[in-house]
Amino acid sequence: MDSRAAALLTLTPVLMLLVAPHREADEGMWTFDNPPTEQLRERYGFEPDAAWLDHVRQASVRFNSGGSGSFVSADGLVMTNHHVAMGSLSKLSDAENNYAADGFYAATPALELPCPDEELNVLVSIEDVTARVREAAAAAETEAERAEARAAAIAAIEKEETQATGLRCNVVDLYHGGVYSLYRYKAYTDVRLVFAPEAGVAFFGGDFDNFTYPRHCLDVAFFRVYEDDEPAKIEHFFEWSDGGAGDGDLVFVSGNPGSTGRLNTLAQVEYMRDVAYPRALRLIRTLLEGLYAYGEGDEERMRQAKSDIFSLENALKAYTGYLGGLQLERVMDTKRAEEAALRAQAGPANAAWDRITETRATAVRIGTRAYFSRLRGGLAGTARQIRRYAEETAKPDEDREAGFHDSQLESLRFQLLSPAPVYKGLEEVWLRGSLAVALEQLGPDDPFVAAALGGRSPDEVAAEAVAGTRLDDVEVRRALLDGGLPVVDAADDPLMALVGRVEAIVRSLEDTSEEQIDNIEAAASAEIAQARFAAYGLSKAPDATFTLRLSFGAVKGYEEGTTKVPFKTTYAGLLDRSASFDNADPWTLPDSWAEAAEAGALDLATPINFVLTTDIIGGNSGSPVLDRHARVVGLIFDGNIQSLSNRFVYDEEVARAIAVHSDGIREALRSVYGAGPLAAELGSSRPL
Amino acid sequence: MDSRAAALLTLTPVLMLLVAPHREADEGMWTFDNPPTEQLRERYGFEPDAAWLDHVRQASVRFNSGGSGSFVSADGLVMTNHHVAMGSLSKLSDAENNYAADGFYAATPALELPCPDEELNVLVSIEDVTARVREAAAAAETEAERAEARAAAIAAIEKEETQATGLRCNVVDLYHGGVYSLYRYKAYTDVRLVFAPEAGVAFFGGDFDNFTYPRHCLDVAFFRVYEDDEPAKIEHFFEWSDGGAGDGDLVFVSGNPGSTGRLNTLAQVEYMRDVAYPRALRLIRTLLEGLYAYGEGDEERMRQAKSDIFSLENALKAYTGYLGGLQLERVMDTKRAEEAALRAQAGPANAAWDRITETRATAVRIGTRAYFSRLRGGLAGTARQIRRYAEETAKPDEDREAGFHDSQLESLRFQLLSPAPVYKGLEEVWLRGSLAVALEQLGPDDPFVAAALGGRSPDEVAAEAVAGTRLDDVEVRRALLDGGLPVVDAADDPLMALVGRVEAIVRSLEDTSEEQIDNIEAAASAEIAQARFAAYGLSKAPDATFTLRLSFGAVKGYEEGTTKVPFKTTYAGLLDRSASFDNADPWTLPDSWAEAAEAGALDLATPINFVLTTDIIGGNSGSPVLDRHARVVGLIFDGNIQSLSNRFVYDEEVARAIAVHSDGIREALRSVYGAGPLAAELGSSRPL
Repeated sequence: MDSRAAALLTLTPVLMLLVAPHREADEGMWTFDNPPTEQLRERYGFEPDAAWLDHVRQASVRFNSGGSGSFVSADGLVMTNHHVAMGSLSKLSDAENNYAADGFYAATPALELPCPDEELNVLVSIEDVTARVREAAAAAETEAERAEARAAAIAAIEKEETQATGLRCNVVDLYHGGVYSLYRYKAYTDVRLVFAPEAGVAFFGGDFDNFTYPRHCLDVAFFRVYEDDEPAKIEHFFEWSDGGAGDGDLVFVSGNPGSTGRLNTLAQVEYMRDVAYPRALRLIRTLLEGLYAYGEGDEERMRQAKSDIFSLENALKAYTGYLGGLQLERVMDTKRAEEAALRAQAGPANAAWDRITETRATAVRIGTRAYFSRLRGGLAGTARQIRRYAEETAKPDEDREAGFHDSQLESLRFQLLSPAPVYKGLEEVWLRGSLAVALEQLGPDDPFVAAALGGRSPDEVAAEAVAGTRLDDVEVRRALLDGGLPVVDAADDPLMALVGRVEAIVRSLEDTSEEQIDNIEAAASAEIAQARFAAYGLSKAPDATFTLRLSFGAVKGYEEGTTKVPFKTTYAGLLDRSASFDNADPWTLPDSWAEAAEAGALDLATPINFVLTTDIIGGNSGSPVLDRHARVVGLIFDGNIQSLSNRFVYDEEVARAIAVHSDGIREALRSVYGAGPLAAELGSSRPL
Repeated sequence: MDSRAAALLTLTPVLMLLVAPHREADEGMWTFDNPPTEQLRERYGFEPDAAWLDHVRQASVRFNSGGSGSFVSADGLVMTNHHVAMGSLSKLSDAENNYAADGFYAATPALELPCPDEELNVLVSIEDVTARVREAAAAAETEAERAEARAAAIAAIEKEETQATGLRCNVVDLYHGGVYSLYRYKAYTDVRLVFAPEAGVAFFGGDFDNFTYPRHCLDVAFFRVYEDDEPAKIEHFFEWSDGGAGDGDLVFVSGNPGSTGRLNTLAQVEYMRDVAYPRALRLIRTLLEGLYAYGEGDEERMRQAKSDIFSLENALKAYTGYLGGLQLERVMDTKRAEEAALRAQAGPANAAWDRITETRATAVRIGTRAYFSRLRGGLAGTARQIRRYAEETAKPDEDREAGFHDSQLESLRFQLLSPAPVYKGLEEVWLRGSLAVALEQLGPDDPFVAAALGGRSPDEVAAEAVAGTRLDDVEVRRALLDGGLPVVDAADDPLMALVGRVEAIVRSLEDTSEEQIDNIEAAASAEIAQARFAAYGLSKAPDATFTLRLSFGAVKGYEEGTTKVPFKTTYAGLLDRSASFDNADPWTLPDSWAEAAEAGALDLATPINFVLTTDIIGGNSGSPVLDRHARVVGLIFDGNIQSLSNRFVYDEEVARAIAVHSDGIREALRSVYGAGPLAAELGSSRPL
């Protein structure tokens, strides 16, 4: 599971609506200012107090690259997944040192490796700003004016707060206009790599075992955050459980789920099923083909491509799973029943559903053009962001598009000026792939295709733009960012030129989408949200928004076929699965493990993975699993294949989150990796 | 998988018809006089010669209690499954020594335990007697007369041959009147228990893991056959492979598959789906309920009930699987297509299919009455057999019903005079259950129900009959068998009396079934068989008949969900699955294994189970898996859940037989059970 995958699917934010409460369950990704107190008391006899919630919130970490993590020592030690760390691992690797594949361990802080562009955020406080945002729009007459007024108010709040506090400040739209919350984050940008195991055990079983269970992955990595070149002193960090997750235990997950569609209308969900997912899968397959061809027979190229392949294979399997979920009659029946139940009570607001349904035809037409009218790849994205940066920062803050407000510029520049290596061969694969699919899907006469290609082939255009661009040089990017629009316009760079040729068309598609789809959806969704508040109050959690949430549930196996699936797996299972395939790839056991097993150094009954009912989704990767004392008992890294339809309808019967077991992590550090000091640091406050 | 289960389903022999060849595959349970030479050459480049076939045939063993086995030493050592040995293990056990649960090992021949009633057969020769059987029926005018004439000819052949050779002689009807083959068997009745592991590892995972894979069962047992109180000297036994089954290897299975329905007509298959399986499942559920209630909270009673529960749970899962297969549209589509293809070439024989279809209404009515009009249980069955023995042996041999011909009496008496313990509590459960279901399904006015109950309750009648009967005494049974009809009629025994009250009704139902269903089916099936021979020749194997067959295939994993299932599992997997459930029942690891693991005495990479494409079914349990040199590489004990629909349509994609790995057997004997001498004897000809 990987929140990066979502970027391929969503061009415009998917708007979501509240659904009727359909069952009592461990459902919900709850905000920390509206915790599921009643459900926890009723189902588990547990009541977290304010101190508990504050502690958990402040020990939780968001990886802006797309994932979650947590502080696990007083000295800034951060735990996340190997696959969340994959981007940094790749950027720190080269042909000599392939940390992404071979793992890494810094036995002392001095050996820790600074990441080029990893930013971690900690949620410091939440404030309800609904009244101010609503008020700002009260005087406006049209829906477009209201949307603009709200956006301006949000930008103003974010700017004021950023200036006043020095924190990263974002207003989050929850319940689709039902609640606006100001989230203030402390940001850490000096992030250093401490430990990663081999990819072979972190991603044991590869794409085959991805989204499956029983599972045997040590999908863990450790970073350390620094302040003033010293390990940061952390007040709120999680202690480490002795024994870890046990069968039936109540557990919590604190992390940043990326996106769910539980509150979509039926028409929106059908659109995902019939248009959006098939479209995304079409693109993913072309990109994957290009990446495999690029890496084939060349070890260094394959190393470069690995991280992208990993992401896309993951997205391929996830989207196939989401689509499969939507193709299940029972899932659609549940959606249908929920919608009917709410509409029966909604009175005149019923028209809002119909308005959304009416936008679907436009979504098919314009949405599809917009989706394919995009230059993909890291460098092409950078080029586009540089151009927009120049255009947007020339405007007053309140008029800028989302992402370019003053409060957001620091994070944005941090990303755009990353010193991470750029592989032009890879960039060409992405650009060529996106152009080829655009040509195939939209035809040569489409305005975007015509402007981008001008009658030439995707191969030619991509090759020329990538070969000639100098955007791989950080200083070139800095000069463009600092120079403003005239410098950008004058740049003699074929990739900037390509972006310039298509930019007006892309903007126009975005504007049309906003006007004819997004604004109508937003207004209708807000109406539906109000109808839902009237019917059910705040008793349901909002859809995921890649902001901090608390989920709860139980450690629990399930039934599959005609037998039982156990709640945990063990080191013995890892050895078994490898031996069962005669140690063939992707079930090859890393030498470190084979040697430890051979030496009898492993306690084979040590748990490695386990499953839990907790409600999670992509973006939760790297979230800690906590017991009722807020001690670490595990580390979320995936969900089983049955959990993929949770994106739309939560199921507690067989859908499960999958976590690395805390005992399995600590024991591996000690017995396999000779990382005793790191194992000792877990959950501790003693000085390094 | 367990051929005993079949007894609950089939009242009258299920007649089967040939189906069109529908694909090239590892399909077929071949007779040794028509081996799949061409398929083996084409698919695997292997040609077994006559010596190879003779050797494999004579080293293969049939357990008359319902299973297969093989000679694995020159000193009469026989290998089979623990679950095939379960009947003998139960009979040898008592409240003091529960060998069925705790296992057994005789370190020297003197310690081996003689089984009360285990009979093993070795197929000595096969002779085609089709001409003689057909000729006998040539002069008859009606179908009933023809059937009678054929039966008389078969009885005569069997009697002559038994007298002439001293062997067990049976005429087997293959291809439903297409081929009659005389099978001559050498019988071993002095069979002694050598080794069985604990039930906990033989049936690891219990009913949950039954029919599933990956799997971790040491489902093995060893017997030794004796002649003149000395271990029998065996010329043809299988050598033991070093290394055992490997990925992709060509392998063979030689054993006695019980029953398949691949040649049934569509109407017959639909009848199984809609009537026969649901009916059998109804009875099984009632019996299981009774058995669990009997054993609940009482260890000794549960021990007594265990073997029956095992059988019925197995049947429950198997029938549910068979039924599930028939409910798959693709399976029925295949049947439909095969039938249509043959009928298109069958000309006037087409009427035969219609005649079978017409019998189905009678089958629903009379077949259902006959199915429920039966007193179930070991003692009730014995009582019925004793009565029939008296009635039938009073007739000339050629007039007797099947099972009571002179050639069959020795085996029959061996069974009826078994000194195995009888548990009256269990007998009552069976009798009460069958009466209760008869009352429920047929109503109080049904002739069988009225005669059996006479207005009283099933509880009362069963309790009285079982409490008062003396048939649990071998000598009482012997006196009745030897005394003939007058002694039987005069017996003052409530169970014999109960049998006497219903016997005329049961016989009448059998006669009606024979006349209105079986004879019509037999004649029509023979016509269809001829049409099939005309179209396809002998290029397809006959349906299974619990006689010796040779199957072939490859050791091969498969895909499930979105991942791969490995071709084998290992000792490490056994430890993992036990630890994954916190060692809970039915995944509790026996102490012997836990101690061996603790002591580091286990090579964890040792394979325990593996899967193969070979075509098998219930009755094949205990069959050896052989490599091309006829060395033992494994031991069949089950099929995966996907293989259950193989009863009707063979599938090579995901259907798999499951075997214990030869390395796993030998290594366990050495490292877990301290049975080094037995391990050394495997496949060897050195003296004990």
